[in-house]
Amino acid sequence: MEANPLEGCHIGLLRWFVAATQILGLSAVIITGVWLGHYQGGFAWDGSAQQFNVHPLCMVLGMVFLYGDAILVFRTLRNESKTTAKILHASIQLLALVAVIVGTIAVFDFHTAQKIPQMYSLHSWCGLITIILFCLQWVMGLTFFLLPTLSYSLRAIYHPYHVYFGMGLFILAIGTCLAGITEKLLFSISTTYSKYDPQGILANVLGLLLVSFGFVVGYILSRDEWKREASPEEEALSMHFKTLTEGGSPDSQRDQ
Amino acid sequence: MEANPLEGCHIGLLRWFVAATQILGLSAVIITGVWLGHYQGGFAWDGSAQQFNVHPLCMVLGMVFLYGDAILVFRTLRNESKTTAKILHASIQLLALVAVIVGTIAVFDFHTAQKIPQMYSLHSWCGLITIILFCLQWVMGLTFFLLPTLSYSLRAIYHPYHVYFGMGLFILAIGTCLAGITEKLLFSISTTYSKYDPQGILANVLGLLLVSFGFVVGYILSRDEWKREASPEEEALSMHFKTLTEGGSPDSQRDQ
Repeated sequence: MEANPLEGCHIGLLRWFVAATQILGLSAVIITGVWLGHYQGGFAWDGSAQQFNVHPLCMVLGMVFLYGDAILVFRTLRNESKTTAKILHASIQLLALVAVIVGTIAVFDFHTAQKIPQMYSLHSWCGLITIILFCLQWVMGLTFFLLPTLSYSLRAIYHPYHVYFGMGLFILAIGTCLAGITEKLLFSISTTYSKYDPQGILANVLGLLLVSFGFVVGYILSRDEWKREASPEEEALSMHFKTLTEGGSPDSQRDQ
Repeated sequence: MEANPLEGCHIGLLRWFVAATQILGLSAVIITGVWLGHYQGGFAWDGSAQQFNVHPLCMVLGMVFLYGDAILVFRTLRNESKTTAKILHASIQLLALVAVIVGTIAVFDFHTAQKIPQMYSLHSWCGLITIILFCLQWVMGLTFFLLPTLSYSLRAIYHPYHVYFGMGLFILAIGTCLAGITEKLLFSISTTYSKYDPQGILANVLGLLLVSFGFVVGYILSRDEWKREASPEEEALSMHFKTLTEGGSPDSQRDQ
């Protein structure tokens, strides 16, 4: 690939797209903080509306921004070993998971304290499905790709599902945010939302930022020429494993 | 490919997945009809709440179900010519576009008649962006791929963007539906939604059906072995055009 004169140009373009994701993602986290801090009374952990505010902040930070960045590791870390990339991916996803668990406890606790029923809204249904599948996905990823227990062929079978469900959950998280933002605005500014209340505009902009972040992350992943190249050593090792475990079957690599 | 014994098995599995999309998509359309017909007073075109009801039905039918089926044409039509597949794709998208335009007029008209401000909610912002881009996407698709005006190389450059934006708009439409369902429920059953009102449960199920439809359509598209094979004639013709227009440049096919 080094001989390809377009390679440097492609990677230069990738850097601009990654920079765009960081601007969009960080703006989304900051705007969530401003919305809840300035318009919704700030943050606390006492069963009040301020405890509820911890929920959207943790979810935007964990389930969207950190989760998206963890996916991008396999495009941004181009010269480090595959193992380094995998450890960084799992570590960022662990941070995301912690944020998501704190955000989930925040809202369940708030509902209990305020005697609001749990799990009645579409947002809560989509959210709980996303969170449960994210936990499963993290454990499966650890078991299949980081612990040295499973064979190359089993890893190869699971890999496309990990990638597809990973992307699917990221998108579902953003869709769930759109429903969540709508819910929060109609609970708190139902009479002024239709009068173009600045809080409503700010939260709408947050929704568009989340969608744009997802769109650019997805675009980066969709471009084949931005995929991380395996080093010659990784290539040789993976061929060695393939030969050992699959005997060079022509169809065994189809999904990878 | 005929020599591959797994080919028939792969395609058999594809049929099951396509069947699943049709069950999910049709169920979503039917449940939208039942929700609005049974719980929200039915349909009319007189500026009343019944006119509003035309909006979600047209959007679920056009922007999700028909749009998804139009995408699937390139996986389901395996033995017909590429031109047949393209004409069917554009025709289903035209039907979708008509439904989307009717659905959009329905809600703008309803807002005007009821003196409700236009375009203040996150749902309306995401929705309008989706609709404008869908119209553009349809016109671009017609110009690039059906009218015999543009060269193979221009078509090849635009093709990956058509595919990516096409899928992106489909996903954004479903995300917009989640916000729209949430909005409608909080406008109409705000006091009983948290008491597990059957209407709320039904609309939540609709949301999950839309998400599941998107998830299965996306999965079908993500599997390389389910891609439509070009016939030997199409292959030869496309190679002929490539040689004429690009002189066999090694990077010109990268994105396709």
